[in-house]
Amino acid sequence: MATLIDGRTVAKEVNKNTAERVKRLANEGIVPGLAVILVGDDPASKIYTRMKDKKAKKLGIHSVLSTYPEDIRQDELLHDIRRFNADENINGILIQEPLPKHLDGDKLLNAIDPGKDVDGFHPFNVGCLYNNVNVNYPVSCTPRGIMTLLKHYRVKLDGARALVIGRSILVGKPMAALLENANATVTVANSHTQNLTELTKQADILIVAAGVKHLITGEMVKQGAVVIDVGMHRLADKTLTGDVDFDSVAPVAKMITPVPGGVGPMTIASLMEQTVDLTEWSHNG
Amino acid sequence: MATLIDGRTVAKEVNKNTAERVKRLANEGIVPGLAVILVGDDPASKIYTRMKDKKAKKLGIHSVLSTYPEDIRQDELLHDIRRFNADENINGILIQEPLPKHLDGDKLLNAIDPGKDVDGFHPFNVGCLYNNVNVNYPVSCTPRGIMTLLKHYRVKLDGARALVIGRSILVGKPMAALLENANATVTVANSHTQNLTELTKQADILIVAAGVKHLITGEMVKQGAVVIDVGMHRLADKTLTGDVDFDSVAPVAKMITPVPGGVGPMTIASLMEQTVDLTEWSHNG
Repeated sequence: MATLIDGRTVAKEVNKNTAERVKRLANEGIVPGLAVILVGDDPASKIYTRMKDKKAKKLGIHSVLSTYPEDIRQDELLHDIRRFNADENINGILIQEPLPKHLDGDKLLNAIDPGKDVDGFHPFNVGCLYNNVNVNYPVSCTPRGIMTLLKHYRVKLDGARALVIGRSILVGKPMAALLENANATVTVANSHTQNLTELTKQADILIVAAGVKHLITGEMVKQGAVVIDVGMHRLADKTLTGDVDFDSVAPVAKMITPVPGGVGPMTIASLMEQTVDLTEWSHNG
Repeated sequence: MATLIDGRTVAKEVNKNTAERVKRLANEGIVPGLAVILVGDDPASKIYTRMKDKKAKKLGIHSVLSTYPEDIRQDELLHDIRRFNADENINGILIQEPLPKHLDGDKLLNAIDPGKDVDGFHPFNVGCLYNNVNVNYPVSCTPRGIMTLLKHYRVKLDGARALVIGRSILVGKPMAALLENANATVTVANSHTQNLTELTKQADILIVAAGVKHLITGEMVKQGAVVIDVGMHRLADKTLTGDVDFDSVAPVAKMITPVPGGVGPMTIASLMEQTVDLTEWSHNG
C-alpha cells in the first residue's frame, strides 16, 4: 500500500516557516503585502479569496482584498493594478479567476509588475521558468506546492519519467517545466492524447490535472509510481474526490496524495511563501 | 524509403513570399529593418551573421550588422540595444550567440524590446508561447522553420506522439511548446533520460536536437515516423551530417530531413519572415 503524501502536514510546516520569515522581516520594519483582486460574485472565487485573505492575515501578511462589481470596466481595473504596482506596501498582486467575459484577462495580467506577480502567470515570469534562467522569479503556486511535496518525500526527479496530464497555465504547463528543470523526462498529455494508458504505465511520476473525475485507475498505473492528484470533484454524498481513483491506485503506487488533504493545502501555503519571497527579493534588489 | 523533406525548396518558397511582403510594405513607404549584434571573432558567428545580413539585403530588408570587439563592456552593449529599441527603422534585433563570458546574456536579452525580439528568446515572448496566448509574438526561428516544414508536408500533429530530444532555449523547448500548442502529445528527452529507445520507438514525430552525431539509428525509430534532424556535424572528409544516422533511419521513416538541406535553410528563411512579421505587427499596432 502506498505511502500517503500528507499535504496538510507539509503545508503546516511551510506556513510555520513563512510566519517566521514574516517575523524576521518585521524586525526590519517590513510587512509583506498581498493584494487580491476579485471581480463579481462567483461563489467559489469568493471562498478562495477569503481563504487567502484569512491565511495571509494569520501569518502576519498585510492583505488587501479588493472587490469589484461584475460590470467593472477594464480601464478601472487597469488603474487599480497600476496603483498596486506603485504601492510600496504591496509585494504581491493576484487576479482571481475566472473573470467576466467582457474583461481581457491577458491584458490585465500583463499589466501586473512581473516583480509583484505572486501567481507567476505573467508571460515574463513564465518565460523565465521555461528558459530556466538563473535568477529569482515567481512560479504558479500549485505546481510550486507539488515540488515542495516531492522534495519533502525525497522523490527522485533526475532521470525519472514524469507524465503530466493536463496543460493548463495554472498547473500542467508550469508543472512540466519545473520537472524538466529538475532533469526529469517529461511528457504532457492532453485531451487529444491517444492511448493514455501506454503513457501512464511508463510514468515513475504521474501528475494528474485533467479535471476528469477518476480518470486514472489502478490498472493504468506503473507499479511503484508516485501519483499526485490535482483534481477536486464533489460527489453526490458531498464528499470530495480527485482525478485519481484512489482505492484502485493506492495499492499499486509507492506514494499517493489523498483528496482532500494532498495538493490542496499546498497551493495557499505556496502563495503565502511566494508573497514573502517577492518581498525579500524586492528589498534585496 | 522515406520521403525527403526538402528544406531548400520550402525555404525558397518562404523567401519568395517574404520578398513579396517586403515589396508590398515598400509601397506604403515601409522598409523592415534588422539589427544583428555580433561580439568578438568567433568564426562560425561571423559566417552566420554575414549570411543573415546578405539574405536580408537580398530580400529588401534594411540590415545593420553591428560588430563589437571581444572586450566590449556590458553597458556599452546595453546602450546600443536601447538605441535600436528606439530606432524606428529597426524592427528586429538579435544578439548572435555565443557571447564572451564577461557579458550577462540574460540581461542583454531582457533589454531588447519584446516587440523587436526577432529571435523570440525574450522571456516575455517565451511566456506568450507557453501560455499559448491569442496575440502575435515572435518564436525561435529554427522550431518556427520546422513547423513550416511539418505544415508544408501535411504532417498530422493533432493527437500525434512527438518526442523532442534536447531542451535548449533555441530549439528543444520552443519546439515542444509549438507541437503542444498544435495538440500533439509531447515528450522532451534530455541527457539524463533513461532508456531513450523506449521513447523513440513510440514517437510519430521525432525531432532530434541533441548535438550528438548519429545519436538516432534505424532500430530506434518507429516504422512510419517523421524524423527531423536539427544536428549539424562535420565529418573528417568535410561532409556534413546530423544527429540522425540517415542511412539506417531513412528506410524506416515515412519522412526525413537530410543534413544539409533540411532544417538548416529554414532557420534563416524564418528569421527573415519574422522580421517582416514584426514590422507589420508594429505598424498595425
